[in-house]
Amino acid sequence: MSMYTATIPQLTKVVGSFERWLDKAEAHAAEKKFDANGLLLARLAPDQFPLAKQIQAACDAAKFAGARLTGKTAPAHPDTETTIPELRARIQSVVAFLGTITAEDFEGAADRTVTLSFAPGMGMSGADYLNEMALPNFYFHATTAYAILRHNGVPLGKMDFLTAIAMRPI
Amino acid sequence: MSMYTATIPQLTKVVGSFERWLDKAEAHAAEKKFDANGLLLARLAPDQFPLAKQIQAACDAAKFAGARLTGKTAPAHPDTETTIPELRARIQSVVAFLGTITAEDFEGAADRTVTLSFAPGMGMSGADYLNEMALPNFYFHATTAYAILRHNGVPLGKMDFLTAIAMRPI
Repeated sequence: MSMYTATIPQLTKVVGSFERWLDKAEAHAAEKKFDANGLLLARLAPDQFPLAKQIQAACDAAKFAGARLTGKTAPAHPDTETTIPELRARIQSVVAFLGTITAEDFEGAADRTVTLSFAPGMGMSGADYLNEMALPNFYFHATTAYAILRHNGVPLGKMDFLTAIAMRPI
Repeated sequence: MSMYTATIPQLTKVVGSFERWLDKAEAHAAEKKFDANGLLLARLAPDQFPLAKQIQAACDAAKFAGARLTGKTAPAHPDTETTIPELRARIQSVVAFLGTITAEDFEGAADRTVTLSFAPGMGMSGADYLNEMALPNFYFHATTAYAILRHNGVPLGKMDFLTAIAMRPI
């Protein structure tokens, strides 16, 4: 299986779908007549990251997966977003960055040594990083963002999470 | 990258970790003096699956990933669990099933046609199924289960989700 395929097209698609979730959040807020940006402070537990940080973390998980597996430099995002338009710009920046990464950039990615800032002196193989860290961590923050929106009444459904899938007639 | 490695060791590890989450749920309930089984009915939105169903769905996503990519028959689980001990038995059954699947069983898995009951007449390649459906759907239900527990005060942290990762000195 191609590590490129396991990473770039799928993360691009799901990160891009965050904008559809925000569309539904804004429509819900308009219907209920509240400020949609207030949802960015919502959280499911008092010591859990709120929605804005969940989306920031999912965006970071996606961009760092692309960067660490290919040696490319990810764009910097200092976590300053406090409004939905600002989060949309971040989402679009990550989608654009992922779009610069090609299948050829993944040459040798499975055996590349990936380092993580929280574990100095340690590393993971690229394949282990993808399977054990990058994908689980990405989906963790994406699903938590989705769950916060669902908990606050935004009418999302499972297909908003899975998005379009590559089915074909058999 | 090996589809076996992307699937069986990682899903086995995370499904197995659900028991650690339930350990913490039981300890939290004992401390607060409530019936831990009551958590299985908790949900984050009135039209969302409760905790028991989230764990059942994550277990199913894991077992079907193993089954559909290899042609093996997954054990049947009729979603009758209403207690934590019953859910533990289901978790253990899925871990045991995944343990019967070898790297050799994944021969040709990327090009295998996978069919899904909700889309008759349609199919996905094994690689597309893994990337676009099996892993996202698994992590979706696992994270939602985790979020329900966090929302109900169970002291889980991110490493309970990621579990041990294959880091090595560099």
